[in-house]
Amino acid sequence: MEDREISQAVIGRLPRYFRYLGELRDQGIERVSSQELSDIMRVTASQIRQDLNNFGGFGQQGYGYNVGYLYSEIGKILGLNKEHNLIIVGAGHLGQALVNYMNFERRGFIFRGIFDSNEKIQGTRIRGIEVRPMQEMERFVRENDIDIAVLTIPKTGAVQVAEQLVSCGVKGFWNFAHVDLHVPDNIQVESVHLSDSLMKLSYNLLSHSE
Amino acid sequence: MEDREISQAVIGRLPRYFRYLGELRDQGIERVSSQELSDIMRVTASQIRQDLNNFGGFGQQGYGYNVGYLYSEIGKILGLNKEHNLIIVGAGHLGQALVNYMNFERRGFIFRGIFDSNEKIQGTRIRGIEVRPMQEMERFVRENDIDIAVLTIPKTGAVQVAEQLVSCGVKGFWNFAHVDLHVPDNIQVESVHLSDSLMKLSYNLLSHSE
Repeated sequence: MEDREISQAVIGRLPRYFRYLGELRDQGIERVSSQELSDIMRVTASQIRQDLNNFGGFGQQGYGYNVGYLYSEIGKILGLNKEHNLIIVGAGHLGQALVNYMNFERRGFIFRGIFDSNEKIQGTRIRGIEVRPMQEMERFVRENDIDIAVLTIPKTGAVQVAEQLVSCGVKGFWNFAHVDLHVPDNIQVESVHLSDSLMKLSYNLLSHSE
Repeated sequence: MEDREISQAVIGRLPRYFRYLGELRDQGIERVSSQELSDIMRVTASQIRQDLNNFGGFGQQGYGYNVGYLYSEIGKILGLNKEHNLIIVGAGHLGQALVNYMNFERRGFIFRGIFDSNEKIQGTRIRGIEVRPMQEMERFVRENDIDIAVLTIPKTGAVQVAEQLVSCGVKGFWNFAHVDLHVPDNIQVESVHLSDSLMKLSYNLLSHSE
C-alpha cells in the first residue's frame, strides 16, 4: 500500500479496471496493452497508465499488462483478498436484493446478520440468515466482529442507527438511506443515493433534448 | 437552460443541493446564506457559489438564497417538473424495491410497465403494475411513450436489451446491470454499479486501517 493519499476519483475507477480485467481473464486472454484496454474501456490509454502508476505501474514496455497478475493485484489493492463481516439494517426489498446477490460473498463480503424493526418479519430467514430485532444489533456486532453495516432503512433513523453502530465498532457504512451520515474521520462511508442518480439522468435527458 | 455544457461533477452535486434545500423548506426556513448552507452540507461556501453560478446565481448580496425559490429552480434545472414514463426490466428484488419506492413517483418518474423473462412471475402485479413477458416490451415502449428504461437484469442480456430499447425510442437508461452500456451519443445512461461501490468502501477501509 502506498503511503500517499490516492484520489477518490482514481479509487472510484479501480473496480472498473477489475471488472474488465476479470472479463479478459475469463476469455483466456493473458496480456493486454494499455491501448487495447483503452479501446474496450473507452478511456484514454494515458489515463489508464496514470491511474495504474499510482500503485507502482504493473506494465512492461513493449509487453503491456499481464491480465491475471494485474487482475489479482488490483483485487489486493481493493482489499478483496480479505474477508469482511457485514450486517444489513433494513430487510425490505432492497436489503433482500443485496443479501441475495451472491457475487458480494464471492468477493469476501459475508452477510452475518439482518436487522429490522418490523416484528412481522423478525424470525423469518433471507438466504438462511435470520431477521433479528434492532435491540439485538449492538450485541451481535460486538460478538461477530462486524466491520461493515449496510443501511437500507429510511432516512429517519439512519443517523441514529449509524451512531449506535460506530459506538460498537463498525468501521464502514454502505449507506442507501437518503441522508448523509456524518461520522468520525476514521469511519468510512460509501453512499448510494438512488434518487440523486435518477435526478442526474433526468437532467441529462433534458439538456440533450433541447 | 444554459447553452454551454455544465460538468457532470456539478450536475452530480445538484441533487444534493435539492435534498438539503427541501429539508430546510420542510423546516419552514425561508432564507439561507451560502455560509450556512456550507456548514450543514460540509462543502465550502465558495464551491456552493461556483456551482450555482453555472445556472445564473440565484443569490443576493447580503441576503443569501431564498430557500423555496432556489429549491424550485434546482428542481426545474433537474427536469423534475416534467413527467417521465419508465419501464423496469427485471422484476427481482431490486426491481421490486425500485417500483415500490414512492418518492420517484412524487418526482415525476412514473413506472408504466414491468418486464421479466421468468414465466412464473409474469401476470403477477407489483404495486398494481403487471409483470409482462419480454416479448411485449418493444410494443409497450412504442405505445406508452416510454422514455426511461431501468435495467435490473444480470449483465448477460443487458447489452442486447438496451439495443432493442434504443431502437424503439427509449432515450435514457438507469442501469443496474453490472456492465457498461455503449449506446449512441444521444442516449443517456446513468449506471449504478453496486459492486464497484462496495469495492470502493473496501479500499477505503483497508487504506485507513494501516
